[in-house]
Amino acid sequence: MKEKVVLAYSGGLDTSFCVKYLSIEKGLEVYSAIANTGGFSTEELKNVEEKAYQLGVAKHATIDVTDVYYRNCIRYMIYGNILKNNTYPLSVSSERIFQALAIVKYAREIGAKYIAHGSTGAGNDQVRFDLTFQILAPEIQIITPIRDLTLSRDEEIEYLKKQGVERDWTKMAYSINKGLWGTSVGGKETLTSHMSLPDAAYPSQLQADGEEDMTIEFVKGEIKSVNGKVFANPVEAIQAIEAIGNRYAIGRDTHVGDTIIGIKGRVGFEAAAPLMILKAHHTLEKHTLTKWQMYWKEQLANWYGMLLHEAQYLEPVMRDIEKFMEHSQENVTGKVFLKLRPYRFEVCGIESAHDLMKSGFGDYGEVNKAWSGDDVKGFTTILANQLKIFNHVNKGQLDIE
Amino acid sequence: MKEKVVLAYSGGLDTSFCVKYLSIEKGLEVYSAIANTGGFSTEELKNVEEKAYQLGVAKHATIDVTDVYYRNCIRYMIYGNILKNNTYPLSVSSERIFQALAIVKYAREIGAKYIAHGSTGAGNDQVRFDLTFQILAPEIQIITPIRDLTLSRDEEIEYLKKQGVERDWTKMAYSINKGLWGTSVGGKETLTSHMSLPDAAYPSQLQADGEEDMTIEFVKGEIKSVNGKVFANPVEAIQAIEAIGNRYAIGRDTHVGDTIIGIKGRVGFEAAAPLMILKAHHTLEKHTLTKWQMYWKEQLANWYGMLLHEAQYLEPVMRDIEKFMEHSQENVTGKVFLKLRPYRFEVCGIESAHDLMKSGFGDYGEVNKAWSGDDVKGFTTILANQLKIFNHVNKGQLDIE
Amino acid sequence: MKEKVVLAYSGGLDTSFCVKYLSIEKGLEVYSAIANTGGFSTEELKNVEEKAYQLGVAKHATIDVTDVYYRNCIRYMIYGNILKNNTYPLSVSSERIFQALAIVKYAREIGAKYIAHGSTGAGNDQVRFDLTFQILAPEIQIITPIRDLTLSRDEEIEYLKKQGVERDWTKMAYSINKGLWGTSVGGKETLTSHMSLPDAAYPSQLQADGEEDMTIEFVKGEIKSVNGKVFANPVEAIQAIEAIGNRYAIGRDTHVGDTIIGIKGRVGFEAAAPLMILKAHHTLEKHTLTKWQMYWKEQLANWYGMLLHEAQYLEPVMRDIEKFMEHSQENVTGKVFLKLRPYRFEVCGIESAHDLMKSGFGDYGEVNKAWSGDDVKGFTTILANQLKIFNHVNKGQLDIE
Amino acid sequence: MKEKVVLAYSGGLDTSFCVKYLSIEKGLEVYSAIANTGGFSTEELKNVEEKAYQLGVAKHATIDVTDVYYRNCIRYMIYGNILKNNTYPLSVSSERIFQALAIVKYAREIGAKYIAHGSTGAGNDQVRFDLTFQILAPEIQIITPIRDLTLSRDEEIEYLKKQGVERDWTKMAYSINKGLWGTSVGGKETLTSHMSLPDAAYPSQLQADGEEDMTIEFVKGEIKSVNGKVFANPVEAIQAIEAIGNRYAIGRDTHVGDTIIGIKGRVGFEAAAPLMILKAHHTLEKHTLTKWQMYWKEQLANWYGMLLHEAQYLEPVMRDIEKFMEHSQENVTGKVFLKLRPYRFEVCGIESAHDLMKSGFGDYGEVNKAWSGDDVKGFTTILANQLKIFNHVNKGQLDIE
Repeated sequence: MKEKVVLAYSGGLDTSFCVKYLSIEKGLEVYSAIANTGGFSTEELKNVEEKAYQLGVAKHATIDVTDVYYRNCIRYMIYGNILKNNTYPLSVSSERIFQALAIVKYAREIGAKYIAHGSTGAGNDQVRFDLTFQILAPEIQIITPIRDLTLSRDEEIEYLKKQGVERDWTKMAYSINKGLWGTSVGGKETLTSHMSLPDAAYPSQLQADGEEDMTIEFVKGEIKSVNGKVFANPVEAIQAIEAIGNRYAIGRDTHVGDTIIGIKGRVGFEAAAPLMILKAHHTLEKHTLTKWQMYWKEQLANWYGMLLHEAQYLEPVMRDIEKFMEHSQENVTGKVFLKLRPYRFEVCGIESAHDLMKSGFGDYGEVNKAWSGDDVKGFTTILANQLKIFNHVNKGQLDIE
Repeated sequence: MKEKVVLAYSGGLDTSFCVKYLSIEKGLEVYSAIANTGGFSTEELKNVEEKAYQLGVAKHATIDVTDVYYRNCIRYMIYGNILKNNTYPLSVSSERIFQALAIVKYAREIGAKYIAHGSTGAGNDQVRFDLTFQILAPEIQIITPIRDLTLSRDEEIEYLKKQGVERDWTKMAYSINKGLWGTSVGGKETLTSHMSLPDAAYPSQLQADGEEDMTIEFVKGEIKSVNGKVFANPVEAIQAIEAIGNRYAIGRDTHVGDTIIGIKGRVGFEAAAPLMILKAHHTLEKHTLTKWQMYWKEQLANWYGMLLHEAQYLEPVMRDIEKFMEHSQENVTGKVFLKLRPYRFEVCGIESAHDLMKSGFGDYGEVNKAWSGDDVKGFTTILANQLKIFNHVNKGQLDIE
Repeated sequence: MKEKVVLAYSGGLDTSFCVKYLSIEKGLEVYSAIANTGGFSTEELKNVEEKAYQLGVAKHATIDVTDVYYRNCIRYMIYGNILKNNTYPLSVSSERIFQALAIVKYAREIGAKYIAHGSTGAGNDQVRFDLTFQILAPEIQIITPIRDLTLSRDEEIEYLKKQGVERDWTKMAYSINKGLWGTSVGGKETLTSHMSLPDAAYPSQLQADGEEDMTIEFVKGEIKSVNGKVFANPVEAIQAIEAIGNRYAIGRDTHVGDTIIGIKGRVGFEAAAPLMILKAHHTLEKHTLTKWQMYWKEQLANWYGMLLHEAQYLEPVMRDIEKFMEHSQENVTGKVFLKLRPYRFEVCGIESAHDLMKSGFGDYGEVNKAWSGDDVKGFTTILANQLKIFNHVNKGQLDIE
Repeated sequence: MKEKVVLAYSGGLDTSFCVKYLSIEKGLEVYSAIANTGGFSTEELKNVEEKAYQLGVAKHATIDVTDVYYRNCIRYMIYGNILKNNTYPLSVSSERIFQALAIVKYAREIGAKYIAHGSTGAGNDQVRFDLTFQILAPEIQIITPIRDLTLSRDEEIEYLKKQGVERDWTKMAYSINKGLWGTSVGGKETLTSHMSLPDAAYPSQLQADGEEDMTIEFVKGEIKSVNGKVFANPVEAIQAIEAIGNRYAIGRDTHVGDTIIGIKGRVGFEAAAPLMILKAHHTLEKHTLTKWQMYWKEQLANWYGMLLHEAQYLEPVMRDIEKFMEHSQENVTGKVFLKLRPYRFEVCGIESAHDLMKSGFGDYGEVNKAWSGDDVKGFTTILANQLKIFNHVNKGQLDIE
């Protein structure tokens, strides 16, 4: 009896090659699997399944992890307003982890001896897959034909042809990766340091002009309604926001960052929903959280984003951070008002029962009732103490020339 | 002989009232002074001077601190990509400090016994002035008539009229504060939580359509040239960038944040040059700095911005942080390419001899020469060690449901 | 009918003066109250009560907050291994907050219009009391006779004598403050920078010689047993450890730190139980937590300690941090072995089912089974990538002379 | 002509094996080299040299890096009061880097094609050597016979015997590593989690009883004199302090920490000078630095220690941090008074012209001249603002039960 291998299958050239290679050269029974993090339509998934069976897999599995992904990750990225390097919503970085988690779980369930994936040796994904597999299933061996054989596209196509597989393998000008939390776009420009992607490279094209209002309502940091429509599942709310934002071609940018393997990487992306949601949520927090809550949330969230990006999602500290994040959302409840225009949006303001700005106490810049000018004088006198002493002891050191 | 008071004078109602009040009610010899941080034109300054003499000051001084302000503060805000709450370039927060420093220096020079300023008891500025004065000149007493008397505008006008001063004191719909590092705008919308400023509230109006390229060149983190034109003084480069960006109405937003006195404050701003420069500089850093340089620069810069905002510019730790910041700019040299469009801009890319992305080593996503797939396997195996052990010792704890 | 004032009463000269002053000069009905955080014996509390009634208070209340204090504060200080400036277990800083919380709660219960305390204008305690009272009961007014009148001890004694109160008010050479989490000692040496307290200044004196083993068992970060004896309440476990440690005069040191009002303060302390517990707990964590858990726990704990010290215990971020801390203790279960000797102790080691050191995988410095030398070579090759590129791009910059 | 290999040679079994193996099996010309970081006596170094020539090396080099090591590393560890996990002065971690730097520099100078070292595959040192070599000399290949061949001691001895080398290779019960910044001790106890080293395992034995005073004088953070004796070179001051502290058997402890390769490691150490110097320096800083200087120094220093431990000394951020550290020492000048007793020491106090405690302003706990009780009331009122508003807006949330 043949040994089982679970292959993370996408329907593209590399993983198609893997099906044949694992089956013929390695003599394994191939179980292809695709984990959907919200980026594939039912039709696309059906298409992938058909392709898998055409290549002769023993079984193909479509695993939907959208809800698991939202609940265990996207939710915390929203709580944390996480933008890697203040730019990138970690679209691909985060979904790969949940694909890996789903694949390894499936492999254990069916008693596979091997897991295979089609990553090359130059990117982040290989680390995300390998690390997750090794930690959770050290007993399962990992096979990575593309990384190990370093074949060219032509060599792969040639091999498949020899095995009787003929398809249109024409490479797209831009490689696109779509998930619930954004779409990444790579192409010849992103391989340079000086060019940005042309409009045509983005899958979503501008379809609206003029402007449009949007109201996003949060309850304890999670989206409850969009433009008055209540969503039982925040996943659907995100999709609704994305559908509107896409028409305005909102949320495009280029991210340059450090890969897990130490080189710099550059990628374009479009992420209308993530960017609008994060900025809306952030604004609501500015009104409802204290200064030190804002400060420490940012510290922890940046770190959370970094470890998430670097395949360390399973680090126990991530679960500790999530507890902090979740508790910090106690009062992040209210409506945020946005205005959408072609290629950009504005957060106009918020309305919240927990708004620390409209307190009935003294308002900013106005005469107030809660304290007097003399209180501020006393405050400043005491606040000045340490530097007054410092200046007294270390004469002249504080002078600015 | 009368005692001398130096009054921070702006030409507005509050400080005009102060001139008369200090002179008549307090019997002091009033030395008015205005410290220009780059926001006033020569004409405006002359106008302020004339008004001062009309009110009968003993002497009026115009102090230009633009260069001191750039060299000791703006420079570090650029090195640190400082945006308070990821939004606000600390326009007013930072310039107030340098105005206070200039005023206290002048007061000591002329042997004044008092310093007066026109701040109310509700904002940040009173703390910035008082703190700076107290620390550097504890022997000088501070007088704040507006804060102490809590008069209404009408009462002030009435008092001035009685002293024979009649002017058009009509309040502008929006209070504007202009400096080298941005313009703040306050009005009835910023007193609410839910409204943003109308277009008309901003001093700069859209004058361009279409799009325009811009190249900013940095040498060790400082701007050297704009669109090929070399500037001996970065101050002039900032002004040149502002002039172009203003035509596109770039850099408008609303900031909500914590005041020094613990209440939330909201203010609109336009800051074309700061926002374009900071994002350009940040992108250049992403290409030329290591991951941990980026990480720690951000930690320290956020803190620097916070203390700066909170009137703690003189804290010795600020000087320590500046040393870190300055040294981190060693390789931040190169050109950044931007594209300007109405109300927005894009950073297209960079070109630098210190670019860590184009190294001749393995490139992102491509076959490389510096390491093998086996190296990455070894890397991942070792990287997995701690969590592999954790999972072995604490069975099941890492499972994600 | 007279208005009610609740007075935080300790039985000393200052608060005895306050009883008479509030009653006679202010015409208030005085409700004295003492909140015990574990530092007073039943006998001492009875003595305080008697003194209060002798002074003529309307009612005296003894409020035990030891358990509330442990559950809401000491517990987290243990989780966080909190030593201010790596020295001081925040003995007084933390207990004052829980005394203030108890006093304000009592004042609200009995409908008092005023709260009074005996703090002077030079220390931290005034801020801890005032801040807590103002935040939780802004409707209650605060009276601080000692701070306001700035009387000398002799003047206070004279006043009391006039009111017929004659006691031995001889000042002790050292002021002692005892609580569950340590004892502070102030005296003439702590007012200097160069002297430390003599042995005789400490309330506990060395009573043991030789050495003694101690085993502290933790379950999820909380003490469960000491030397095999199980305690239902960790408070009693702390007291048991203190009783043993005291005999060895363990845990003495001098703390120099920043007060809330910006001046430096210096205080001696003895805290046998806190120091032994914290070092034992810390060692157990080094074996059971991951590197990044240790790192972030320390960041958050230092901050927690700082805000706690500075009267900001009620900051909402403290509750968020507590969630992180609590979750991080999931695996902090096991025994810690200590050896006590006069004036010092040693943590010899630990035993835990969650020990990440004894994993069955490769051990430190030994041949291992989980990875090969080649894996480490691959690891190092990839780990070197960024600096290899850096050195290639920026020739010579990494040289160390 | 044979290719050259530089071998990091210590005189022990492993590196002796390497000499023969590289020469005979690899056909290389062996250049042995030892880099002294202050732990070896002239006699020991001479002995190592003789052994090398007996084994037939082409040339043996003794490289003294003590001063380079102090100037580029120990100095900053003192500035930063660096104790890994609040325990370990990073004795071995730091000196390995400077040994690696010296070896790679020497290899480049003599045009070696290879560098060899005797590390196994289970520890930190292999990473420290490999990483440093790869970054600075990617053109030189690394050979690690011990790691690659995984021979037992007996097999190595057998091989050497065959090559005519017969020595007493008896393994010591404890492996000792001595450097300027401390001595590490490993043995059977440190391989467990529950046992600490016996007294006899430590190279220094208690030779003093009673007590002894010591005065360490710092100038801008560097040691200038010890007990009044001025040292031109701080290296000699450290050695003088070590000589005294050793007699009291001061500075012993056990460190448990995370290795670079993800497993936990445990090691005993004695480090009299480092521990006394660090605690003395830290105390001087508590008196002379501001609160935020202390705070950020600690953040950066902990990170510096972590990267140093993990072989990342060459990271450019380390140089940035050093600039911060150095500048922070501006006022860290003064004398620190210690008292030494068997197995322990106490920092009694300091004396400094920059002491922020004795300012002539208000002293801690005493009546003061620089502010009034009313100032503190105003201070507290304003400080309470945010939480007062929070409590008003979010009723009951601040209650502690």
